[in-house]
This record gives sequence, C-alpha cells and structure tokens, in this order.
Amino acid sequence: MIYFDNSATTKPYKEAIDTYTKVAIDYFGNPSSLHPLGKAAERLLTQGREVTAKLLHVSPNEILFTSGGTEGNNLAIKGTANLHKKRGKHLITSNIEHASTLETFHQLEKEGFKVTYIEADNNGRITKDQVASALTEETILVSLIHVNNEVGSIQPIYEIGQLLSRYPKLLFHVDHVQGVGKVPLQFHEAKIDLCSMSAHKFHGLKGSGILFVREAVRLTPLLTGGSQERGVRAGTENVPGAAAMVKALRLVLERSKELSKINKINKFIESECKKIPGVVINSPKERAPHILNLSVVGVKPEVMVQALGEKGIYVSTKSACSSKQTDPSKVLLAMGCDEETAASAIRLSFTYDNTMEEAEKFVEEFNSIVKMLKKVVEK
Amino acid sequence: MIYFDNSATTKPYKEAIDTYTKVAIDYFGNPSSLHPLGKAAERLLTQGREVTAKLLHVSPNEILFTSGGTEGNNLAIKGTANLHKKRGKHLITSNIEHASTLETFHQLEKEGFKVTYIEADNNGRITKDQVASALTEETILVSLIHVNNEVGSIQPIYEIGQLLSRYPKLLFHVDHVQGVGKVPLQFHEAKIDLCSMSAHKFHGLKGSGILFVREAVRLTPLLTGGSQERGVRAGTENVPGAAAMVKALRLVLERSKELSKINKINKFIESECKKIPGVVINSPKERAPHILNLSVVGVKPEVMVQALGEKGIYVSTKSACSSKQTDPSKVLLAMGCDEETAASAIRLSFTYDNTMEEAEKFVEEFNSIVKMLKKVVEK
Repeated sequence: MIYFDNSATTKPYKEAIDTYTKVAIDYFGNPSSLHPLGKAAERLLTQGREVTAKLLHVSPNEILFTSGGTEGNNLAIKGTANLHKKRGKHLITSNIEHASTLETFHQLEKEGFKVTYIEADNNGRITKDQVASALTEETILVSLIHVNNEVGSIQPIYEIGQLLSRYPKLLFHVDHVQGVGKVPLQFHEAKIDLCSMSAHKFHGLKGSGILFVREAVRLTPLLTGGSQERGVRAGTENVPGAAAMVKALRLVLERSKELSKINKINKFIESECKKIPGVVINSPKERAPHILNLSVVGVKPEVMVQALGEKGIYVSTKSACSSKQTDPSKVLLAMGCDEETAASAIRLSFTYDNTMEEAEKFVEEFNSIVKMLKKVVEK
Repeated sequence: MIYFDNSATTKPYKEAIDTYTKVAIDYFGNPSSLHPLGKAAERLLTQGREVTAKLLHVSPNEILFTSGGTEGNNLAIKGTANLHKKRGKHLITSNIEHASTLETFHQLEKEGFKVTYIEADNNGRITKDQVASALTEETILVSLIHVNNEVGSIQPIYEIGQLLSRYPKLLFHVDHVQGVGKVPLQFHEAKIDLCSMSAHKFHGLKGSGILFVREAVRLTPLLTGGSQERGVRAGTENVPGAAAMVKALRLVLERSKELSKINKINKFIESECKKIPGVVINSPKERAPHILNLSVVGVKPEVMVQALGEKGIYVSTKSACSSKQTDPSKVLLAMGCDEETAASAIRLSFTYDNTMEEAEKFVEEFNSIVKMLKKVVEK
C-alpha cells in the first residue's frame, strides 16, 4: 500500500494507539468524579494539557480539548460571533477555506452576519493588504486557513497577525488543521487568538482535537452543560483520545526534522508528472511540503483515484469532507483554474513514513494509468 | 476495587476496546475518501449504523453518530429551537434535567426563547398532565430525561409521547443517556422524535454517542462543514469509536437479562443502609435498578466519597458533570429534599459486573465509616 492521502487522515501511530488503550483501561474514571479513579483521570488530562501547551509554546489554560477540527473551527467562529455580535456583525474569511469554516460562515450569514470572503490569487494566497482593506468598524473576527487542504498554499499568518494586533477588539482565528507537524506556527508570535487542530491529521485518533484559545479570550460555548474545559466545551472529557493525541503530537513534532524528505518526495513527483502530456500541476510553487495537487485534464478524478486504488495507491479527489460532491473544486476555481482542470484534480498528501521508493512507484503507475485512460478518453 | 459510579462512566468492555484498536489500525481511512481504504471505513460505519438501528428497533437513517450525550442533547434541543423558532419560541423541560439539557435551555432563554420547567414531585417524577398544562400554541419542543441521573426516577415517556403525538408540529426529545441497557425504551412506540445516548455510559468509549432522529425530523446543525451524518453533524466520523460503541451496545443489551441482579444489589444496599441512624434514602421507591441516592445527614459528600475511596469503594456526589460545584444537589432540592439532606447526598450506581459480595462489603465499610464520621461530627 502506498498511502498518499495524509491530508484526509493519517495512520495512527502505534504509540498513540497503545496510549489510547492503556488509558481507556487503566484510567477509565470520569475526570469529574471525586474518587481516586476520577482524580487519576483528571491528573492525566491535566498532564496532557501541560505537555500539549509546552509542545505548542503556549500556556496550559490556553488548550481546550475538542472532538476535532470541525468542532474547533465551529466553536472558534460561532463562539466569537455569538459573544460579540453586539459589538459588530462583520466577519472576514477567504474563499479557499475548508468546508467547516465556509459552511459555518454561510450559516452565520443566514443569521444576519455580514461576511467578506477575501479572494485568493492564482497561487492560493491572500495578502495582508487584502485583509487590511476588508476591515471595517464592525469587524469582530478574521478567520483564515493556514495551510490550504487542497493545494497546500500557505497564508502569511504572521504578517496578518501583526496587522490585526493593532485592532484589540477583533479576534484572529486560524485553521491550523493541515499545518501541525508540517508547517510550523507559533501562535503567540503570530498574534493568533484562536487556533484549531485535529488529532487524526497528525497520526492521533479520530474524535479528538485541540482549540487554542488565548488566555484573555472568551467564547460563547457551542456545547453547554457541565463545566469541563473552562466551561467552554461541556461533555465528559475523552481522556484516552486526548492522551493519544498528546503522544502523537510529540512524535510528529519530533519527526518534523525530516521535513526535507517529504519535500523531496513532493518535488520529485511534481517534476516527473509535469513531463506527462495532459498533466497540469495545480499547487503553487511555494506550498506546504506535504501537499501536491494536479490534474489529468479530461479525466474524472474518481476514475483516477479508483485506477490508482487498484494498484494499491491511495490518493484523493479534493478535500475528503467535500469528496462526495462531484462538482469541480471550489478552491481551484477560486485560484483561477479553468473548469475542466478544476474538475479533474487529484490531491496527493504525504507524511514522514512515505519514501522515495513509493514516490518512484507512484510515478511509474501514474504514468501508465494516464496513458491508458487517455487512450480510452480519445476513443 | 468496588466501582459503584457507573452513572458517571462505565469501565469499557474489553471487546469494545479490542474493536476500537482493530478498527483504528485496519480501517484508518477517512470514510469520505473514495479509495479502497476510505470505502472500507465507510462500509464499516454503514454496518455499524445498521446494527445500531437493529438493536434499537429503528431505521439506519435515523441513527446519527455524535461525540457523546452532551452533544446529543445540545444538537437535539438547539437544532430544533433554531430551525423552528419562526413557528414558536416556547420550550418545555423539567427541573430535574442533566446539566447539558438545563444549561442549554438557559442559553436559549438568553436568546429570547421562553422555557417552562415542569416541577418534579417528591419522587422525582413529572406527569403527562403537567406536560399537557404547559403546552401552548407556541410550543415547538418538549425535552425530558428518561432516567434521572442522580436519583434514578423514571419519567412516563410512553404516556407523554402518546399525548405529544397529537401535536404533530411539536418535537419530543428524550435524554436516554442513563437508560441504555438498564431501562428499556422503544423510541417509535413512545412516539419520540429525538433521543440522546452516550457510549461511555454503557461500557463503550468516551467521545462517542448516538442521536436518534426520527426519519421526517430535520435539525439545524450545530457543527457545520462536510456532509457527514446526513449533513446534520459535520466532521470526520470517529469510526473506531462508533464501532466500539456498537459492540458495547450489543453486549449491554444482551446482559440486560441480568437486570434483576442489579436490582437486588440496589435494594439490598437500600434496606441495609436505611437501618443506619442518620442515613436517609433520597431515591424514590420506584426507580431505575442501577441508581441509589442517599444522604448521611450532616456529613459532606466529598468526605464520604473520599473515606469510601480510601477503602477502594468508588461512589459519587451528585452528577459527575456537576460534582465540582459544592452547592446542594439541584435535583434533590427540586424533589422537596431539605437543604441539609440535599447537601449530604451521595450516589451509588451499578452495572452488570457488580456482585452481591461487593454490596455486602460496601454495607460493612459504609457502616463503619458512618459511625466514625458521626463521632467526628459530634465532637
């Protein structure tokens, strides 16, 4: 198996699963229970929060555990919009966000918020100046994806954060789901207020995520109930999921010294595939090291994904969360890609366990599949 | 260890953990991915939904997988309130609900909804007639807890469902978190529209839950994004969590033929503890077989929980989700309990692995701790 779909989900680290199992068995108490079993679970959770904070260079009380990236994005955006709507009802985002951001803004528009969708350029980038121009007296939130999940473009978060720090009443949320362990981001340095992450994108387990919430920042909870997670996220804490996530985070950050290997795989496949007639590279030159988007113009991406799948090579059409819609990629269209190219895109996404041998094997198989499919198309 | 805190959380079944691990390793694909690994994960999820539906005697497309009971309650209540607010802004619940229901209604009140909190009687019960009297032209939702989590009182859900079925524009939500595997409930027969459950309360794993949503019922999503879970609950599905939950559900329902054993333990402890001077039984006579609430009047419940904990016996003060607040139990006060008794309550909650030997050992230790503490209090 050659697994090149690491932006959809990653294979959990064995160590993360082992941690999960150990905690699920030995620390099954409810962290809210006052007896020793509850207290042991609570201590473990506190420890996990401390380690997470240290790894991310923030304070433990800035770490909220969530059920994943979608919840993180929803809580950050709706939690801010609902809390501060009296201050203003204008929100800013981009037109190349993940569905969990985009749909959240669409929902808020229906509730009377005004949203500016900053348009990305051909490289999938927006600029600090575009954000500056979009700001109004009414703006309460800017929410941007750090690393685009389809093409790998990277937004200038530090620059934008610097700009926004001059507007203390406005919050800055970053969707860092694709960045963790691949494109470093220092939340405090980048003047970020809220930052979403998802465990299963960095070899942790599904159903766990992190929302960084800067110390002074308040949110209206999405899930109300018990006082877990500083009262911002009710519900019995997923202790084994959190412990496994912390383990995975530590490991993935350790492995990030091998980033150049991923980059080499990416660049090799790009340069080899570019030579194939009919193949267009959609990802910008400057991008995250683990994402490569390309089109075999005129070939439906489902067909390509299936043909590769039969060879044991797993890639994806656009974003996993949108993969069941057959319309062309919104992100590629936003980047100025023509309809036919946008409708033929596949995404390769890598991680540290991938090898150059896999890359070579991919190129070989891809080459012959393209030839074969082109013949079929031309008939 | 004698674990009598099964309403806070249960020890996961070994089989559930094994399923979790197997799925996390062998089916790690994203169910939205179109390649074989994604399709395999999707098939597993579909199978899990089908088995769950069969076990609960409903249709597979009536099963939504969530992150737990709190999310289920929040999604059912807010999802209904937000979708139907133009039809009416009146909601009905009781004054003995779990925090995840109560706080959700408090939040909705702040947003302009009107909520009627039906008052439970001394037995922690509300009646069909009380619900009937509370109904108005504006009522869009009735939300009730099936088995109260602190005292074990059971609401007459079938009767109330029958009544409410005469109001087709009104939805009926039931919090069944404490009932699964202990107090059977047939959703369709009881004319329920929405019903929340939580895996870790029936020996599944934390971070997974079920929301039953009757086929014709629509909800405004809380988590917007991808089109997972019929578009009502975005986010990559927690496939291993769901698979483990299905396994646990099957096992706990199989074991429910041993309900009389749990009941025997409950009744034995009740009758033995009642003999101890200063001990008051707070649970009503008619109650769920697995919950017993009692007070050692004048003794702080934290002290009692700790003293028992030192003997390896784990019980709780009120609800786990409210256990860190030291004020008297709201549920007991609502039931007409005096302040001192309500401030001294502890809850025992049982499951199928508990034994009569444990019950006897509990009574013995409890007896001596009460004597010892009473001496301290009287000094």
